[in-house]
Formats: sequence, C-alpha cells, structure tokens
Amino acid sequence: MSASVVRYLTGITTTGTPHLGNYVGAIRPAVQASRRAGTENFYFLADYHALIKCDEPARIQRSTLEIAACWVAAGLDPEQVFFYRQSDIPEITELTWLLTCVTGKGVLNRAHAYKAQVDKNTAAGVDVDAEVTMGLFMYPVLMAADILMFKAHKVPVGRDQVQHLEMARDMAQSYNHLYGEHLVLPEAQVDESVALLPGLDGRKMSKSYDNVIGLFAPREQVRKQIFSIVTDSRAPGEPKETEGSALFQIYQAFATPEETQKLRQQYAAGIAWSDAKQMLFDRIDAEIAPMRARYEHLVNHPEELERILQAGAAKARQRATPLMRELREAVGLRNLATLAGGAKKEKAKAALPSFKQYRESDGLFYFKFVDAQGRLLLQSSGFASPKEAGQCIAGLKAAQALPPGLPAATADGVDAGQVVAALRELAESGN
Amino acid sequence: MSASVVRYLTGITTTGTPHLGNYVGAIRPAVQASRRAGTENFYFLADYHALIKCDEPARIQRSTLEIAACWVAAGLDPEQVFFYRQSDIPEITELTWLLTCVTGKGVLNRAHAYKAQVDKNTAAGVDVDAEVTMGLFMYPVLMAADILMFKAHKVPVGRDQVQHLEMARDMAQSYNHLYGEHLVLPEAQVDESVALLPGLDGRKMSKSYDNVIGLFAPREQVRKQIFSIVTDSRAPGEPKETEGSALFQIYQAFATPEETQKLRQQYAAGIAWSDAKQMLFDRIDAEIAPMRARYEHLVNHPEELERILQAGAAKARQRATPLMRELREAVGLRNLATLAGGAKKEKAKAALPSFKQYRESDGLFYFKFVDAQGRLLLQSSGFASPKEAGQCIAGLKAAQALPPGLPAATADGVDAGQVVAALRELAESGN
Repeated sequence: MSASVVRYLTGITTTGTPHLGNYVGAIRPAVQASRRAGTENFYFLADYHALIKCDEPARIQRSTLEIAACWVAAGLDPEQVFFYRQSDIPEITELTWLLTCVTGKGVLNRAHAYKAQVDKNTAAGVDVDAEVTMGLFMYPVLMAADILMFKAHKVPVGRDQVQHLEMARDMAQSYNHLYGEHLVLPEAQVDESVALLPGLDGRKMSKSYDNVIGLFAPREQVRKQIFSIVTDSRAPGEPKETEGSALFQIYQAFATPEETQKLRQQYAAGIAWSDAKQMLFDRIDAEIAPMRARYEHLVNHPEELERILQAGAAKARQRATPLMRELREAVGLRNLATLAGGAKKEKAKAALPSFKQYRESDGLFYFKFVDAQGRLLLQSSGFASPKEAGQCIAGLKAAQALPPGLPAATADGVDAGQVVAALRELAESGN
Repeated sequence: MSASVVRYLTGITTTGTPHLGNYVGAIRPAVQASRRAGTENFYFLADYHALIKCDEPARIQRSTLEIAACWVAAGLDPEQVFFYRQSDIPEITELTWLLTCVTGKGVLNRAHAYKAQVDKNTAAGVDVDAEVTMGLFMYPVLMAADILMFKAHKVPVGRDQVQHLEMARDMAQSYNHLYGEHLVLPEAQVDESVALLPGLDGRKMSKSYDNVIGLFAPREQVRKQIFSIVTDSRAPGEPKETEGSALFQIYQAFATPEETQKLRQQYAAGIAWSDAKQMLFDRIDAEIAPMRARYEHLVNHPEELERILQAGAAKARQRATPLMRELREAVGLRNLATLAGGAKKEKAKAALPSFKQYRESDGLFYFKFVDAQGRLLLQSSGFASPKEAGQCIAGLKAAQALPPGLPAATADGVDAGQVVAALRELAESGN
C-alpha cells in the first residue's frame, strides 16, 4: 500500500428496503467512487448500529441480506473493495472500549442526536434522559471505532454526521496524545451536490412520505408505481413543462444528456403522460433489470452472500488485527512474556526523544519535541489542522535542522544544537 | 455441568502491589473458596477496567504480571478454576455493546461512582461532567458483561459494588425481556465479616495510609516493616494488652487458635515487644516463604504466567463463545446462510406459545404467557424477585396445568383449557 493511497469508508444502514432515491443518491455514486484509482474503499453493513434502534432480530437479519444484496447487485465489487459486516470484526468493539476510556463524557453530551432527545424530553416535561439508551449515547464512539479501525482518511457523510466525524478526530487525538501516534485523523467529506430524486408526489423521495419507487421491487410493481407519478392534467398533444415535472427529473437521473434532450423535445411536442411514463419505465428498467436478476439470485442464495461477507471480513481483519495488536500494545495490554526482555526494550524506546501532538482548548493543534527524559526541547505554535502540524514534524525529521521561520520555539535553557542532536538521535533510531 | 453447580466470579484489579491486608482480606479467602465442592470459580484480571484509571502502559503490564503471580503463588490453581485476563476474551467487549443497547442512560446517571464525581464538580463550581471519562460512566456496563458472559450466580463484592450488581441484573433482565431468557441474573454476595488487618500504625492496613506490610516484598524488608509496628512503651517483663494490639491482631490472622492462645499467655507473662515481633515475623514467614519462592519464580519467568493465562483464556472462551453465539443469534446478528431454511425455522419458532418475563415500574416482576400469534393467554401478578417468577413458570411448564392459587389469571375470553393446550404444545416442542 503506497503512502499516497486515500482510504474512504462508508457505513451502510442495515434497516429498511432501498428505493430508487437511495440508489441515485447514495448507492450508485458510491459504487462509481469505489472505482477511482489511488483509493481504497471500505463499505460496511452497520449491524451493531442497527441494534440501537431495532430490537426485531428477524428484521435485522432480513435487512442485512437485502441491503448487502442491493449493493453487490448495484455493482459494488467485493474483490476490489473491502465489503464486510461490522459485527464480523471483533476488533471493532474492542477499539470501542479503548476509545471509551479516552473520551470525555462532556463530548458526548453535546452530540446532536442525544441533545435532540433531551430537548424533546424537556419540552414534554419528563426526565431529560427518558427513552435515551446508552446505545444512542455511545453511538459516536462506536462510529469512531468503525472509522479509526481502518485508518480511513475520508468519510463521505451528510451534514448531520459532520459532528460525529469531529468527535472521531477528537478521540483519535486523545488516544494519540496519551499513547503515541497510532490513529489516523479522518476527515468528513460532505458532498453538497447529492442528487435528490423526487418521489411519486414531487416531494423528495422518502419512506416517510410514502412516495417511493422500489429499487428491486418486482418489475410490475415498479411499473405501477411509475404510472402513479403525479402529473398535471394536460392532454396528449398539449405541450408540457419539464420544470417541476417529477417524471422528467427522475428520467434525467437515469438518462444520458442526449436522451434527456430528446424527452425535453417530446415534452414540448405534447407527448402523452402515459407515453412519457412508459419511456421512464423502460429507461429505468434498462438500467435496473440486469441488477434485479443478480439481486434476486443473491436474496435466494443467502449462502453466497454469506460467503462474500465472510471473505470480506477476513480481508478487513487483515487490516484490523495488526492495528489492534499495535493499539493494545500501546495501552499496556501486552503479552507478559515480552516483559523480561521487553522491560529493556521499553527502556530503550523510552530513552529516545519524541514528538507529541495535541490539541489545546483554543481549538488549535500543537506539538512538542521532548528529549529522552521527557524534558521539553521545542514547543510549536498553534496550527489550524493536525495535518499542518504533522507536516511540520515531518519537515523537522527530514531536515534534522531548525529552518528559519519555523513555527516553533526552543524551550528555556535549550539551544538549537541540542534540538538538532535530538532530531539526529531520533532519525538514527529509525523512529 | 450439573444444574446444581453454583458459579462464582471475582474480578481482580490489576493496578498496585498486593500487601498482607489484601492477602488476608481478599486473596486467601478467595483461594480457599475456590476449593468448595459444587462450585465453579471464575477469577479474572480486570485489565480493561484498569485502562479507565491508568494511562501508563508499562505499569499496566507490570501490575498484571505481579498480581497474576500473587494469586497463583497464593495457591489459586489454574487447573481447577477459570483464571484469565479480561482482555483475552474478545466476547467481553462484544457483549458490552449488546448490553449498551439495552441499558437506559438514566440507570448509569445514578451510579454512585459517577455521582460522586458530579457532586465534587458541583461543589467546585465546574461543569458537572468535568474530568468524567466515558470509561468511568460505562464502567457498570463492562462489569455487567464480565459477569453475564459466564452466567455467574454469585459475585462476592464489597458494599460499594452492590449497586453495580443491581445494574447487571437490570441489564440481564432488559436483554431477556427483549430477546428471550438467555442471561442469568447474578446476585451480589457481600461478606460482612471480611477480615480487616490493621496496618503498622494500628489503623486499617491500606496503601493510602502508607502503613502496609508487603506481601511478597523481600524477606528482609518484611522483617523491617514488622519490627516497625507501633506498640506501647511497656518494658520486657511487664504484662501487655492484646486488646488494641495491632501486632496481636496480625498474628491472629495467621496463627492457629492454639498458637494465638499461646501468644496471649506470653503477652500476660510480659513478653518483650521485640520477641513478639520476631514471633510474628516467623509465623508470617512460615506461611509466605514458600509462596514467595513461587512468586519470584513466576515474576522472573513471565512466559510461564503468560502460558497459564492463555490456557485460562482458552478455557474461559469455551464458555464465552457458545453463549455469545447464542446472544448474537437472539438479537439478529446471524449467518445469512441460515435464512433460506432459517426463515422457515424462524416461523416455526415464532409459531409457538411463549413466556415473557419483565419488570414493571412498580419494581415487581411479572410474566405473560402468549400464544403463537402473540395473543395474551395468562397474566401473572407481581413477584418480589425474578427468581420467584421463574419458578412459577417452571412449575407451569412442568405441570401443564393451572394449579389452584396460581398467582396468574387467564386473559379475557381465554379459558383454562386453551392455556393448558398451549402449555402442552410448548412442552412437546421441547422449548
């Protein structure tokens, strides 16, 4: 894995049945994105998360099957990406505990989802924590474990999830501050241009509006749904408006620009609504039909999906297991047998200068450079991002010198020569 | 494993170095208890818990070594008991998550340890959650997982832990209520007669008073500590009081009644303090010296302890793994391959009458008996304990009849014959 690979991680909710809106807005772009060069892509079925909201075992199992089948049918290639079920990675809950120990309760008190429930309870005049399970409260910690476990750089999320990403960064930072640089700080990637598909009634397609077109519903049912799209009452032969036409917008989401242009002309020429609906059905069907065949095959052969997911878990654990071993080692959950010789090793390791990165209450990112005895050598100014702080550290390590204009100052009683000597010592140790 | 086996579970803190007070008050009685017939005994090194309070990796590793060595040296037989390191059982954090999802946040808000910190913060005029980590807040959930994972019946604890046991019971009950009877409700076992050893100054022996005698400290150091026990100024030949004499009490904790009686006579006869101290040292040394040799051997051969702990983990996981499989199945984290045939099985399972146990807000324990379609057949009155409710259910299942005076009533429109038929159906299914 080269250093320039960018890792993306996407969690997939395992409740509900996907509709065309999910396909256009989430599944199709994610599948396309998974094929970018220079990226590694992690997609996981978030079944531990599902337990927070759903206590119907059969529904959890069924939804996991259908949703996993959807993604594979829609073109996600389990050979090319990491595609796994969260609950198949035992390291996830273990990391959750390690992060739990470095997370301030105050951080979770500020989570939007929790606060929304508190506000609701306050308005209702009941206990602020009424109906709040620890699952809801701990959600951001589990989510952080999902992300940090695979050293994800970017996590495509909606606006509502940006705060959770900030929390995951905070937890990674706290861990790294206490135990050394082991975790990668992830970034939220908010795509503002997410394609929103209108539903049957013209509002955003959403289960809560009961206006959805099924993604892999039986063909005849999809046809019926499409023929029930609300249109105006213009008769065949009357020119029609594309503006505000849900039918037109849905067509556009599936058609090439040329096909869209052609339908626009037909609207102007007075195409009958029934003909336009037939065109839409045919266009969607052309894209979905081959996928539906694959979907139905998988749903009817759950053992094939199970094999895919188990292979995916094995592949994902090739990443999770070594990192978890490293993280356990760092916190002190160690094989005792290493202690005899290990005590010496530990000492040798402690006897090296080191960089420590951290975040201050001013929200800025800092680093310190300390000698083998922990004495401060160099104190940085604040950086806007941990990446900038990290780049500055990397620069110092590479240069083994203090360049002019360095945003860091030597500590009282320490001269530049001592700092440079410590930088060299560190470089020679290979750390 | 016969049904009459009683399982005991004891968590061992892995920070600090044990002293004679720990030995007399905790280690020695626990080792003796582990030999009772008709019991299974689980002892685990609570290293995940240690992470809540300790962020010094080397100390965690070293303490784990020393404390594990102490227990084995003190006579705990890893062949006869389950002796393992918490962090070697991946099922523990997984169960922690399942319990997290069934635990109301309000429950944890009431935990004494958390509330103590809140009170401290309130008094200091800072944010109520200042310095509170999620580790502290989640502690009772992890502890519940430790206990429930091994279906422990009894957990010997101090008074301060009784509330945590209640929480573990609540979590087990919530889980069982949602997903069926899978978890065993544990009971706290508070031993009010715990032997409290006085320290060098006569107060309770405790690290916080700096008055301890080391358990496996070097022999000469132990001698020095013993010779520094505070006595009064009576000269040799003057009769001495046993009442209030720390020296006498410590001797008593190690000696037979006959030996104690003899020292009592020597006190009356005016034994010199230095002679009494020498007697005490000799008595303690007689018990500890063989253990110290074993302790020192183990600490110097950490690989042997590591082997013992890994064998212990393998043995413990023979219990944890099948239960975790059952618990995952129950919540819906299932192998998809079981779904084809599994869907039918599920249906068959759902198509059976069943008992549901729950707790009402009045604090009492109830059960319902419902038919295959979930229709209420029988509603119990409130029981003082879940055990009583369970016994009543067991009685009904065994009798397949409604005995007179049954603390339960048939639902409106349901007659006794229907209930009995359903009981028979259930019995025939083998459930």
